[in-house]
Amino acid sequence: MPSTSSTQATAQIGVTGLAVMGSNLARNFARHGHTVAVHNRTAARTTALIEEHGHEGDFIPATTAEEFVAALEKPRRIVVMVKAGAPTDAVIDEFAPLLEEGDMIIDGGNAHFADTRRREQALRERGLHFVGAGISGGEEGALNGPSIMPGGSEESYKALGPLLESIAAKAPDGSPCCAHIGPDAAGHFVKMVHNGIEYADMQLIAEAYDLLRTVAGYAPGRIAETFRTWNTGRLDSYLIEITAEVLAHTDAATGRPFVDVVADEAEQKGTGRWTVQTALDLGVPVSGIAEAVFARSVSGHTGLRRAAHGLPGPRREALAPAEAEAFAARVEEALYASKVVSYAQGWNMISSASGAYGWDIDLGAVAGIWRGGCIIRAAFLDRIRSAFAAEPGLPTLLADPGFAGEIGRAQDAWRSVVATAVGHGVPTPGFSAALAYYDALRADRLPAALTQGQRDYFGAHTYRRTDREGSFHTLWGGDRGEERTG
Amino acid sequence: MPSTSSTQATAQIGVTGLAVMGSNLARNFARHGHTVAVHNRTAARTTALIEEHGHEGDFIPATTAEEFVAALEKPRRIVVMVKAGAPTDAVIDEFAPLLEEGDMIIDGGNAHFADTRRREQALRERGLHFVGAGISGGEEGALNGPSIMPGGSEESYKALGPLLESIAAKAPDGSPCCAHIGPDAAGHFVKMVHNGIEYADMQLIAEAYDLLRTVAGYAPGRIAETFRTWNTGRLDSYLIEITAEVLAHTDAATGRPFVDVVADEAEQKGTGRWTVQTALDLGVPVSGIAEAVFARSVSGHTGLRRAAHGLPGPRREALAPAEAEAFAARVEEALYASKVVSYAQGWNMISSASGAYGWDIDLGAVAGIWRGGCIIRAAFLDRIRSAFAAEPGLPTLLADPGFAGEIGRAQDAWRSVVATAVGHGVPTPGFSAALAYYDALRADRLPAALTQGQRDYFGAHTYRRTDREGSFHTLWGGDRGEERTG
Repeated sequence: MPSTSSTQATAQIGVTGLAVMGSNLARNFARHGHTVAVHNRTAARTTALIEEHGHEGDFIPATTAEEFVAALEKPRRIVVMVKAGAPTDAVIDEFAPLLEEGDMIIDGGNAHFADTRRREQALRERGLHFVGAGISGGEEGALNGPSIMPGGSEESYKALGPLLESIAAKAPDGSPCCAHIGPDAAGHFVKMVHNGIEYADMQLIAEAYDLLRTVAGYAPGRIAETFRTWNTGRLDSYLIEITAEVLAHTDAATGRPFVDVVADEAEQKGTGRWTVQTALDLGVPVSGIAEAVFARSVSGHTGLRRAAHGLPGPRREALAPAEAEAFAARVEEALYASKVVSYAQGWNMISSASGAYGWDIDLGAVAGIWRGGCIIRAAFLDRIRSAFAAEPGLPTLLADPGFAGEIGRAQDAWRSVVATAVGHGVPTPGFSAALAYYDALRADRLPAALTQGQRDYFGAHTYRRTDREGSFHTLWGGDRGEERTG
Repeated sequence: MPSTSSTQATAQIGVTGLAVMGSNLARNFARHGHTVAVHNRTAARTTALIEEHGHEGDFIPATTAEEFVAALEKPRRIVVMVKAGAPTDAVIDEFAPLLEEGDMIIDGGNAHFADTRRREQALRERGLHFVGAGISGGEEGALNGPSIMPGGSEESYKALGPLLESIAAKAPDGSPCCAHIGPDAAGHFVKMVHNGIEYADMQLIAEAYDLLRTVAGYAPGRIAETFRTWNTGRLDSYLIEITAEVLAHTDAATGRPFVDVVADEAEQKGTGRWTVQTALDLGVPVSGIAEAVFARSVSGHTGLRRAAHGLPGPRREALAPAEAEAFAARVEEALYASKVVSYAQGWNMISSASGAYGWDIDLGAVAGIWRGGCIIRAAFLDRIRSAFAAEPGLPTLLADPGFAGEIGRAQDAWRSVVATAVGHGVPTPGFSAALAYYDALRADRLPAALTQGQRDYFGAHTYRRTDREGSFHTLWGGDRGEERTG
């Protein structure tokens, strides 16, 4: 039964900001038996929520911030679902003065983790808990079970965890897709990397599609079938599933494949870019994510594309049907191997930040809570969880015996697909970058020795030697003798 | 004849910060007939400069900031050569109160362009000129002729340009490698991109070396010969020249090729990273530079590399001598084509920033002043200068008929080299990224349409159509009808 406005403190949780994400999250809490105080800057959204969905559970609509705060049990738990940036600060500034020591503000938006660090520190100094919580799964996930990545203090998680876990998606083994990631901004950081990996996944899928279309000569419907088949194997995932749906869809207006009437310009909202910029600060190579971000940029630079149109490329026919099927099987191998590399790079980034910021993130637990609810949810993530369970200090996923074995078996196909792509003029920046990373990481010896020698030549930047400790400089402009510099 | 300390305002220019770069720059000014006031935080460096090099021209050593400022003709021109970051701000804070309207502070360090924008604005409000001047060429260039990229006001360049041009390197046609780049931070921005391109150039050279070593089976001495030959053709450049020098060098201690005793871990100081981060903010794909930065990072991650050591790779023998020579010729084509792509990306970035910040940068002039003095100096840059002279609005270097023709002729070799590299397990992230970018830019149709369809599916991000204006959303969870959203 819908409750009416009340000033009794009976709500276990409050949600402010009732656009679709906030509204769906509030309904999700209510549907799980929690009394939910709801508030919005303008009252119309609050009224609409109660009118349309009030019957789904116990809501306490509040018109003012004071009313909203008064409706909450202590310690108060306020989930903020507003646009990232200045609006988040405005809401914090509005509510913080009304709160008491031990109360919690949970930011469920896509904040940059540096903002979350700043906000957490400021509120901690006022005795309040600030929890940056990554929430993935879009509107549908918010309503029916998202993957939730809360940061903030351990103490806050004690009071907050059970509520969040109750509304989170459940992994196939029944465990909730929510865990305390680590202090301050650990949750928003991990959500950012999730989105970066999502970019890489989508780019790899796009390349696989392009190869099946251009090299194998498959029509979109046939490719949809191929992805459906792949979705029954090790690539089983939400993104592969919806790829098949999108490719199978026919545009009603023209009768043509939907994918052929959509403008080929992919947009981006910024978390992929943030991931790469942050990885550069951390010194972690994330070439798979970077190429995905760049590929979207290229697609949108219509002026450049027009100028480059007609530049010479190879003239190759699509493969004969007999060869096409074997080629498609190799594309699956290339896609899988490239995906493993992307995830390895993403996990390196989480591991590096965990060390740099003192977050002590459980790398396996991150995989565990991405098994359901989020955009990259996949059977595959259970493999990653197991890899870290077997070896918590695993320096790269590529060194896990299971993944290493699979890539070993996939590598001939992977190499063959990249060679075919460049021969046919199909751009596969993601596949290529992943393979180059794999080959660089396993190399006995990298040409970086030459790079370092050049740096010493033109900038006296010194070098280390393979056979002795210390730093050295060669007197390139002099007699080319070597001096020890450190 | 060396001058002694004086309080008469007879110096045309002052240099503060007398480490090697500052000291060499001061000597360069003096050798060109200018009277140079010199100053350092600790007097020992000033004394050393006068003792060792005082005979090279007219120096006015100054112990205090006041003495230094008093020695300068008005409007005063003070070149600051200290470490980028807080030391630069400290020097500005020390000198600015001693200066008068119209005086100039020139920052010749590698400042981040955002810092330069901030400083320029702050000093402009105090009636002073702040000139962020990129200076390339290292210690040797500072002494004998660097490439200089000054930003700041046009007015400041009138007073400063002739001095800077007198000490700059000269291009083969005799023109000075110094030009006013544009307002505020345009000079430091362009210097940053210079360094980013330098990273890409060095990575491409490293890949060419690795291929000649591993696939062609050449010894370093033979590869040095190959680079020397290339240096007589279209790749003629300082970096190719020193590559041959480094590869021809024998380590005295071991008698082995120098490149084999250098640790294969390339370091970086940050401008490559800044370039990529800034490009991401601008939405400009710079995959060549990004892969170069990542490749250096990979080389330095020794823990990861140890963990990945022994991962399966292909087992391929080096080519037979008869094939090796033809392969080496193809590597030259791949290197050249990839280089053109890197430069195209770099120029896109300058062009984009010029628009975004209102700098109105002359894209051809940038190429002109990089023909001499700087690390990427090359005959090639005259080609770029000509391309923009012929078509100032050229949207990408790849669309210049000359470059397009060369790449058209090189592309078979380029594709063949990348295919060979992946077959042999040699990492060529730079060659591969450049080729993928080329193929993406010239594509009729990119798989970004699928990406955008997926985004609409899971996030209702909408899409545009190829056949109608507006934004559209498909009701994926409903009857899959299409609605117009904007």
